[in-house]
Amino acid sequence: MNTSSYVIAEFAANLQFEDIPTEVVRRCEDLLLDTLGSMYAGSTEAPVQKIAAFAKEQGPADGSAQLIPSGQKTSPYFAAMVNAAAAHMVEQDDLHNSSVFHPACVVFPPALAMAQDLNASGKALLTACVVGYEVGIRVGEFLGRSHYKVFHTTATAGTIAAAATVGRLLGLTTAQMQDALGSAGTQAAGLWEFLKTAADSKQLHTAKAAANGLMAASLAAKGFSGAEDIFDGEKGMGKAFSQAPQSDKLVAGLGQRWALLETSFKYHASCRHTHPAADALWAVMQKHNLNADDIAGVQTFVHQAAIDVLGAVDKPATVHQSKFSMGTVLGVLAYNGFAGLDEFEAALGDARIDAFRQKVTMQLDPEVDAAYPDKWLGKVKVLTKDGRALEAFVSDPKGDPGNTLSRDEIEEKVKRLVSYNKAGTSEDATRIIAWTWGLAAGQSDLPL
Amino acid sequence: MNTSSYVIAEFAANLQFEDIPTEVVRRCEDLLLDTLGSMYAGSTEAPVQKIAAFAKEQGPADGSAQLIPSGQKTSPYFAAMVNAAAAHMVEQDDLHNSSVFHPACVVFPPALAMAQDLNASGKALLTACVVGYEVGIRVGEFLGRSHYKVFHTTATAGTIAAAATVGRLLGLTTAQMQDALGSAGTQAAGLWEFLKTAADSKQLHTAKAAANGLMAASLAAKGFSGAEDIFDGEKGMGKAFSQAPQSDKLVAGLGQRWALLETSFKYHASCRHTHPAADALWAVMQKHNLNADDIAGVQTFVHQAAIDVLGAVDKPATVHQSKFSMGTVLGVLAYNGFAGLDEFEAALGDARIDAFRQKVTMQLDPEVDAAYPDKWLGKVKVLTKDGRALEAFVSDPKGDPGNTLSRDEIEEKVKRLVSYNKAGTSEDATRIIAWTWGLAAGQSDLPL
Repeated sequence: MNTSSYVIAEFAANLQFEDIPTEVVRRCEDLLLDTLGSMYAGSTEAPVQKIAAFAKEQGPADGSAQLIPSGQKTSPYFAAMVNAAAAHMVEQDDLHNSSVFHPACVVFPPALAMAQDLNASGKALLTACVVGYEVGIRVGEFLGRSHYKVFHTTATAGTIAAAATVGRLLGLTTAQMQDALGSAGTQAAGLWEFLKTAADSKQLHTAKAAANGLMAASLAAKGFSGAEDIFDGEKGMGKAFSQAPQSDKLVAGLGQRWALLETSFKYHASCRHTHPAADALWAVMQKHNLNADDIAGVQTFVHQAAIDVLGAVDKPATVHQSKFSMGTVLGVLAYNGFAGLDEFEAALGDARIDAFRQKVTMQLDPEVDAAYPDKWLGKVKVLTKDGRALEAFVSDPKGDPGNTLSRDEIEEKVKRLVSYNKAGTSEDATRIIAWTWGLAAGQSDLPL
Repeated sequence: MNTSSYVIAEFAANLQFEDIPTEVVRRCEDLLLDTLGSMYAGSTEAPVQKIAAFAKEQGPADGSAQLIPSGQKTSPYFAAMVNAAAAHMVEQDDLHNSSVFHPACVVFPPALAMAQDLNASGKALLTACVVGYEVGIRVGEFLGRSHYKVFHTTATAGTIAAAATVGRLLGLTTAQMQDALGSAGTQAAGLWEFLKTAADSKQLHTAKAAANGLMAASLAAKGFSGAEDIFDGEKGMGKAFSQAPQSDKLVAGLGQRWALLETSFKYHASCRHTHPAADALWAVMQKHNLNADDIAGVQTFVHQAAIDVLGAVDKPATVHQSKFSMGTVLGVLAYNGFAGLDEFEAALGDARIDAFRQKVTMQLDPEVDAAYPDKWLGKVKVLTKDGRALEAFVSDPKGDPGNTLSRDEIEEKVKRLVSYNKAGTSEDATRIIAWTWGLAAGQSDLPL
């Protein structure tokens, strides 16, 4: 019997551009552009610059792949590493809900790096990225919720996603792709422990998932063998990493169900676990024409993972932590009407936001928790200073597939991201927007 | 209360050469030399050469650290990666029994690479290596037997060992060292699944443990933060990787119990379960001045695990299998006086060895079995062609701490390893031997 690894490898090695529905290709372009914006914005942050400094010390001074946004050349391995660190930094990249996996940050950076190395066509690049999404998302679903309690799925499933993406670009055979999956799975790592002190590990996770996956695929192309049953084997990822691995998820609907289409854009610049409640709060404020100062308290009704991820932060000490503080996120939104990167920068040390934070509670809600992770339901009760208790419920947070962003909204978001911290100019934004919309007919070298 | 990570970091960051007993320093030199031999021997094998090819593609064409044995320069990251892949390849590197962890292959390669980058003294190099052994072994014991069932401890604990080693060379503060441990632990990976098809992952595991640990320490020196409680934290290594983490093992006896001294050398190039009987046979042959052709039969009295592991092989079909055939191992030893890599290569298809194999029996011995695994007792009865029945008993197999190798024996082993597959010459061996014995008074740049 073929292992799940074989079935996935066969799909990943053989998917053709022509097999992919147009809608999927278009959404893949949307996601790529969205991520390019995130790479610009993230590139200026300290953890990313430290990884970039490491790459400069240890990598070559020139090469075939570009760092974003500088355009500086290095080898694909280090370009994938640094760009992936940047892509997830400002928490504005996409999320696949049911796998709790951020595919973009571990798929696009290694894809771009290897595509540039190979002078690949835009079609080849897009095809490989679709492979990465489809495979990575399924691995995230396979590992499931028990995995996500301790492991950062974007790091672990991300290593597999990166390997599949790069493997497709390299034109691996099915057998080689299976080797690549084995070598990726045996490198998969990433623990949530860093959250307690808001350490920099998240950037290391995406950086290494991308780089390690690229290495796994490159080694496979050289005949370096890997485990044949890395997912379901007795000593494989399911056994090691999950209390309840869902093997059926791994191979279900390959080439039929396009999981990429289920990916959500991030609208608020905060941890995704805050978004449903943020949208629900905003809905209440809009409907009842409330100002932030009208609000006496907000009860948010959330899924357990939100408590797990957000509960560690009490009073945020950094901008990054503030994006993991439910109260701060709601305060930023309530006072600004938008919770973007610049709004979070301005919020740290703002006494009004801090006071708002203390009015917000989180509690586990059975309905919300049961729906998660397939649906991320937003449910809040807002207590007003004049004594009203106003409730709101949101079934599709903004950016979700059922409430996705238009190309105009994506362009608007990308322009903000590119100009964040002056990483780039509006001309840069215009150029990468045009390049992305022309990619399916063009080449993979980004005009930086 | 200080976390275990803090306590370990404090030890690792502050251990001074003068704090280390002379006996430990001397044994560290022994282990280093032993490992240099393994790096030479492993360097010629295909999985290592594929990793080296990847390093050449992705790394710089020059740098501050040496590949062994070519002396070719690259960055410390890639030198650590390639040399660590080589160090474990021929399975002749050391083992710490109770942690089931091979420290040498993940400690010495990153140590050498970073020491060369820093132009470190031999004392600094040795101090860092002792740190790596002490920390890595304790992490292996902490993760325990349940971990080893699915995870390759040399890969996981090895990432920590490498980070501690490199961190000490970089002169990290306690806080930075704690960051390094956090960044290493969150990269720790390596699954046994590859064993089923004898895939190449073992070399990837040691390569990446060394390189990832080096990266963790380098990032920490740049202020990149890591989890503060990576071992015992709720989402840390113990929780993620072990059903029964033994936290007390992590910090017990730091600076008092020198776990490095408990490390075993591998003497014969065969399965460890053959070693006690091999040693006992050799004792008989030496004492009674026997040649192989004087022997009519050998009865070996063994523990059950030896029968379980070795019983499957009758007539070996490959060199690898021959190392798991008790009769073949004893024949190789009896005819050559040594059972090394070259002797096993030459033995396959040798009619004399095959005839000897058929004279050897294994039987379960209650005394030997009861002592296992604390003691690996060797017990044989040798029947000579002139009608004598000669017995021997060995309480500590050669290479174990109670019967460790002399410097002459290590030199002999290393000369053989260096010349294996013509990786190096006898002059190379002489040079690295002299360098190692002079290291405590010298510099870390290896005369390749």
